[in-house]
Amino acid sequence: MDRVDLRVSTGRRLVTDLTDEVTAFCRGRGDGLVHVFVPHATAGVALIETGSGTESDLAEALARLLPRQDIYRHRHGSTGHGGDHVMPAFVSPSLSIPVDAGVPALGTWQSIVLVDPNVDNAVRQVRLTFLLG
Amino acid sequence: MDRVDLRVSTGRRLVTDLTDEVTAFCRGRGDGLVHVFVPHATAGVALIETGSGTESDLAEALARLLPRQDIYRHRHGSTGHGGDHVMPAFVSPSLSIPVDAGVPALGTWQSIVLVDPNVDNAVRQVRLTFLLG
Amino acid sequence: MDRVDLRVSTGRRLVTDLTDEVTAFCRGRGDGLVHVFVPHATAGVALIETGSGTESDLAEALARLLPRQDIYRHRHGSTGHGGDHVMPAFVSPSLSIPVDAGVPALGTWQSIVLVDPNVDNAVRQVRLTFLLG
Repeated sequence: MDRVDLRVSTGRRLVTDLTDEVTAFCRGRGDGLVHVFVPHATAGVALIETGSGTESDLAEALARLLPRQDIYRHRHGSTGHGGDHVMPAFVSPSLSIPVDAGVPALGTWQSIVLVDPNVDNAVRQVRLTFLLG
Repeated sequence: MDRVDLRVSTGRRLVTDLTDEVTAFCRGRGDGLVHVFVPHATAGVALIETGSGTESDLAEALARLLPRQDIYRHRHGSTGHGGDHVMPAFVSPSLSIPVDAGVPALGTWQSIVLVDPNVDNAVRQVRLTFLLG
Repeated sequence: MDRVDLRVSTGRRLVTDLTDEVTAFCRGRGDGLVHVFVPHATAGVALIETGSGTESDLAEALARLLPRQDIYRHRHGSTGHGGDHVMPAFVSPSLSIPVDAGVPALGTWQSIVLVDPNVDNAVRQVRLTFLLG
């Protein structure tokens, strides 16, 4: 099985750490790349440091770039949700990471995260695919 | 043939939907990933919902982030075109999508789009590559 | 060897051109994709035109989006460094480029660059991986 669909519980969090799940998926697979993909129109994946404040700094950056105001043509859900639909153009839902002997070759401070500003969906799907390098 | 170069007619549109072309390319290819790439310095590819206003919301977001004003060092073409050259750093020209049994595993609301703010080129090239998963 | 780790001297530059190094790595490898990855939490990779001012236009765009002010929860290093930690959510550290007969299929005006706003680290690592297409 070179692919798996994760069900990720995001609750109302913007940022959900996927590093453990991706690491478990890669174990025993040798050298290659792992592709992380989120099949949702208001979510992305990113590599950031977690646990030091960047989660809330990212939330504020998104609020500056895509304000939660009634300025969007795409209108449904809560006020400003139209901005969530713009986000994936900037925070892409597709990311690949090198894997060495079954271990993601992340930098010391990199964690793999799901970025999901949509507070109305508490569970998200994430697709992992392994590619032999 | 695991690769193809599409010629895409963008006219003066910022957003051009590529979903049908990518879907046709994947048909019959089995499981893997499709890589979508645009070999232009003022364009990117993205996954967004189309037909509900996000195209114009993206246009306005880009106008806030990269205003069409005479503020750029890179000066040629129409006013503000220098910002089009910055855009691909944020809206990447490279994207990969899982494919299951020849069908791109997109979310319900995801469409594959070319993002091209350059109104002076009405035809763009897009490269598709299939990778076995 | 389908993978290599480059040591890149960035000095205090935001943008460092990697095109020559990536081109050299691809030579003789046939058709496929080259994946460019930076294992650092405050850096990304991008495809932009170099030598015409876009480097400084990108610097100014980042300064508008992620101002170098004391507004970040993530506090260490120089003032505003917290913004450098947000940057990779927008300027991704992962990028793939088609390769034809050992030559990256870049557009005429595209160069592969490392984007590194962190002036406190003068040397960075970049991982290249070749995937057969």
